[in-house]
Amino acid sequence: MQMVGKKLALARNWRSETGKFMANGQNKIPAKMTAIAISEPGGPRVLKPETRDVPMPGPGEILIRVRAAGINRPDVQQRKGAYPPPPGASDLPGLEAAGEVAALGDEISRWRVGDRVCALTPGGGYAEYVRVHAGSVLPLPAGFTHTEAAAVPENYFTVWHNVFERGALKSGETLLVHGGSSGIGTTAIQLASAFGAYVITTAGSQEKCDACLKLGADRAINYREEDFVAAVKEATDGRGANVILDMVGGDYVARNYEAAAVEGRIVQIATQAGAVASADFSKIMVKRLTHTGSTLRPRTVEFKAAIAAALEAQVWPLLGTRKVAPVMDMIFPLKEAWRAHERMEDGDHIGKIVLDVG
Amino acid sequence: MQMVGKKLALARNWRSETGKFMANGQNKIPAKMTAIAISEPGGPRVLKPETRDVPMPGPGEILIRVRAAGINRPDVQQRKGAYPPPPGASDLPGLEAAGEVAALGDEISRWRVGDRVCALTPGGGYAEYVRVHAGSVLPLPAGFTHTEAAAVPENYFTVWHNVFERGALKSGETLLVHGGSSGIGTTAIQLASAFGAYVITTAGSQEKCDACLKLGADRAINYREEDFVAAVKEATDGRGANVILDMVGGDYVARNYEAAAVEGRIVQIATQAGAVASADFSKIMVKRLTHTGSTLRPRTVEFKAAIAAALEAQVWPLLGTRKVAPVMDMIFPLKEAWRAHERMEDGDHIGKIVLDVG
Repeated sequence: MQMVGKKLALARNWRSETGKFMANGQNKIPAKMTAIAISEPGGPRVLKPETRDVPMPGPGEILIRVRAAGINRPDVQQRKGAYPPPPGASDLPGLEAAGEVAALGDEISRWRVGDRVCALTPGGGYAEYVRVHAGSVLPLPAGFTHTEAAAVPENYFTVWHNVFERGALKSGETLLVHGGSSGIGTTAIQLASAFGAYVITTAGSQEKCDACLKLGADRAINYREEDFVAAVKEATDGRGANVILDMVGGDYVARNYEAAAVEGRIVQIATQAGAVASADFSKIMVKRLTHTGSTLRPRTVEFKAAIAAALEAQVWPLLGTRKVAPVMDMIFPLKEAWRAHERMEDGDHIGKIVLDVG
Repeated sequence: MQMVGKKLALARNWRSETGKFMANGQNKIPAKMTAIAISEPGGPRVLKPETRDVPMPGPGEILIRVRAAGINRPDVQQRKGAYPPPPGASDLPGLEAAGEVAALGDEISRWRVGDRVCALTPGGGYAEYVRVHAGSVLPLPAGFTHTEAAAVPENYFTVWHNVFERGALKSGETLLVHGGSSGIGTTAIQLASAFGAYVITTAGSQEKCDACLKLGADRAINYREEDFVAAVKEATDGRGANVILDMVGGDYVARNYEAAAVEGRIVQIATQAGAVASADFSKIMVKRLTHTGSTLRPRTVEFKAAIAAALEAQVWPLLGTRKVAPVMDMIFPLKEAWRAHERMEDGDHIGKIVLDVG
């Protein structure tokens, strides 16, 4: 009975329209908001502003007043109709956001209304408000703007799990990261370098290679001019890479098996050049490779909370001192989300593209 | 000086020709022995008896008077010239043997001359004497003949490492093992079943399927009549197999990715149907699969010693009570090793083919 009463009071709160903080610390939340929806599957222009109901946080969830939202490759896939949101998730795109806590669902002890946070979102980040599980929420890193903080969650959760947990990269080992100038790539270069790995990366231009070297890569391979297998072998005295983070797929799979060291771990996080490809699987046996991979979005809230805890303990201090930091590409207003997608698909960006939600 | 003197005394011992035990407990060992050599790369008939020097055990090694030697698929590959022995190994075929300890190298404390043992050998098992590292040696399981014991090491070392260590099969999980009627297959079925897994297997005839069911398989799929992917899904309420042990490769790789459960582990130990094949690598990501594998022969003596210790602690008691036991197919005299290879290549065998060395 008590819980029901509390929920109703909360619901009444955020249907009021003043937008100011109330005496009880709960922000007054409008009933409606502007969000970017996928009007139909297609090109960037199908991303259109719509008026939607502000979502209501359930038990264990918080509502964030979004100030900035990160753009990620899966958003583009979702826009094209190739990556439907998991059951129960918002149909709106957007896998990460930063802003202030606007309202609390039941069973929230850590956060208070007004706290500045960033979060991995289960969709719905391209909007003025987003509902997230508290376990996916982290404080803004010290000294960070909302725009920078919105560029952190998706890449840092992904790299932490896939490179350090699934790939078990250790200090002194060699990491090969493809797409070094992407959001994931720049994050992997910085984190692996900060944790003592030798980092080799591939990128598609001299400018991108230079950017990767500045971020701490020990060797950057322009894949348009050099064969990465030969370059990795040469850079490692023939041993190969201990961990390979790959979002390319296609013919890179067979070449990753060549470039990997004995007992190497290849972690697949996307297959942008194609999912179906041919490879020599005797390499897996003879070199005792491990080819694994994951996608972050469908994982449980408990799983994401465990990564969040590891990140806060081990990576947030590095962000706070700027030993690592997201590489910012361009910022677009929320309503011009289509331009942000266009830029990502053109492939000229270095680092993160972010939406300013105001 | 002392070590040199000891070695020379030992060397004199086994160059004497009586074949009897000496007063000091060292067996008198002939200078020459009969061994089966690969006279040239080719079909089974290239396996020919030759007279060779009896090998001399180095520090940490023992010499075994071989009574029986197991036949394994890699021996066939070696005979064809497709699987050269690793550097330092004998050029003679044979990866496992059972017999009596005939002589000890330096630094051996556990074994005494005359002990009945079986061992993983680094080649050279098809011979009257073989030199092995002490860490690859185990006592004959209680009540075992030499012939049965010679059928144990290669399969049990391989299955233990690949299914339970690399594949991390746990009680209550589902194992899919291809080639269920092979030496590896029969071993995997029995061990996985003994340790509480639900075991599904594939085999090429009703007779072979029946044999697998008798060994403890919960479901045997005749792959000539049924699609194993559909059958595994049906047997697991759509979940798929947690661990897949595969020696087939070829188009089985893509089908294993289909048949695997979320977080499934696929362990490749051979690619009999071809090493190069096509697969959909998005399955690795979406289902968070791990595709790994290994070959046993090139591993360090320390690695093999660790498996031997695990086997002795966890599996030798099961062999001693016949809860698990090698499935014996046929026994051939040493000099007819070519017939043993012919039988393995015909593919009609169920379980292990062994050479009687006399």
